[in-house]
Parts: sequence; C-alpha cells; structure tokens
Amino acid sequence: MRKINIIYAGNIKADEKYFNETISEYIKRLSRDFKINNIEIKDDIDLKKEGVKILEKTNKNAYKIALCIEGKKLSSEDFACLLYSERAINAQSVDFIIGSSHGLSDEVKKSCDYLLSFSDMTFSHRLARVMLMEQIYRAYAIETGRKYHK
Amino acid sequence: MRKINIIYAGNIKADEKYFNETISEYIKRLSRDFKINNIEIKDDIDLKKEGVKILEKTNKNAYKIALCIEGKKLSSEDFACLLYSERAINAQSVDFIIGSSHGLSDEVKKSCDYLLSFSDMTFSHRLARVMLMEQIYRAYAIETGRKYHK
Repeated sequence: MRKINIIYAGNIKADEKYFNETISEYIKRLSRDFKINNIEIKDDIDLKKEGVKILEKTNKNAYKIALCIEGKKLSSEDFACLLYSERAINAQSVDFIIGSSHGLSDEVKKSCDYLLSFSDMTFSHRLARVMLMEQIYRAYAIETGRKYHK
Repeated sequence: MRKINIIYAGNIKADEKYFNETISEYIKRLSRDFKINNIEIKDDIDLKKEGVKILEKTNKNAYKIALCIEGKKLSSEDFACLLYSERAINAQSVDFIIGSSHGLSDEVKKSCDYLLSFSDMTFSHRLARVMLMEQIYRAYAIETGRKYHK
C-alpha cells in the first residue's frame, strides 16, 4: 500500500460538495493500492507564511511534487512513469502540493523533487484537485493494464 | 446574449451526476451573457461516422473550436482573447467540439476554425467538459473585470 498526500491551501466553500464527492470516488477506486490523504491548509495571502504551513505537513522522506504553472508538462503516460518511478515508489510517501491562486512560495518549490504543470491555463484550485486525482487514477490504470485509459 | 454550443461524443454514466451539477452551476453563472447548450452525440468507435454526427450538430455560421491534443496551448488570458475575438463574437455561435477518448476525425478538425489543447495529459471526457466550462467562466471574469481570476 503506497501513501500519497495531497496538500493544498484553500477554503472549503459550499459548491465544493460535488468536487469532494468526485474526489472520494477516485480515492475509493484506488484504495487497494494507495492510501490517499487530503490535507488542507488555510490559504494565506502571504505566500511565505502559507509555504511554511505547507512544508510542515509534508513528510521528511516524501517524494514531493509541486503543481505550478512553471512546472514541466507531461503526458498521462509520462506522469504514470513518474508516479511509478523507483524514487517515488521507495519514498515514504508521494506528496503533491497545490498552491492557492497566488501560486507557491520559492521555498516550497525549492524543497520539491519535481515541479509539474498540468496546463498553461489557470484552473480553480478545487478543479485542480479533481484533475490530479483523475491523473493518479489514470496512471494506476496505465500501470496495471486497466481499460480506463483509452 | 451570445450562443455557445458544446458538442461532445459520449455516454451518460451514473457518476456523471456530480459533473452535470457542476456544469449547470457554471451555465447559471454565465446566463446573463451566454446561452450555453450541451449537445451530446452517442460515441462511435468509427471516428468518421461519429464526426459526421458531430458536424451535423454544428452551426453553419459558427466559430468552431475543437479540443484535441494536437491543438494550440493557450493561457487563460489568451483563451479569453479568443472567446472575445471579433470573429468569435460576430459568429452565430461559438461551437466547442470535444471528442471521445479516441479523438476526433480529420474531417472534424479540418472544418474547425481553431484547434485548442488544454493539456498534454489525457482527461476523461466528463472532466474535460468541466474544465472547458471553468475556462469559459474564467474568460468571462477576465473580460468583465470580475474577481474570480486571481
């Protein structure tokens, strides 16, 4: 059972309900192979302060992946390779970090093993979480030969 | 009131409920300026046949945008410029076309005015619809100076 932590800065809003139900569905589907924790940090206009709170929540021996606009773009197949790479598999956990709409502090980015970008577009932080869960599920489907991916 | 048609090939599934509720919420928020129609085509393993059905649903005088992996990548700001460009504004409607997981036929792509790619990653067709609605709403927020975008 591999551990994945998804650490994000944000605020729960009413319309988050649908998103959370979708995320729960992916977590359930992945539960045989992955233990996925969602860790919410209260967002802070001061990126540095927010970054400190984020880093407190990451595992020391985690493989840390930050989602940010300046990150590298990968296909779903290459993302599957990253998630199933030796370094990621052997780490205590894989920690994904999603910033608020203001981005992530330099300290957070420097402490990460990988900077990943899903798109040149800006997506709401809620939607980014759903997109990430879908890519983790898709990676799992690719690696285990499930039908989901194409 | 501008018209937007979102034409997609797919199959309604049980877990589509949450996605549809999210999409409805965006449609409601945009309803003062945009009339957004979702037009579902039954997906077909034969891309050519599926393409014919898709093109039958598009407006003759529409500004047609296909979402496909080989399309151009835009930032949310540039997508707003596209949606509010003179050609798009003066067209009878803006028709977005989302293919099934097998992609879109060459005929569909050739008939489109613009090929757009959200990401190098593959997303489920359901999620792609939510991502598109969020970008349309974000474009509207950018153009009308609303707070939503950053």
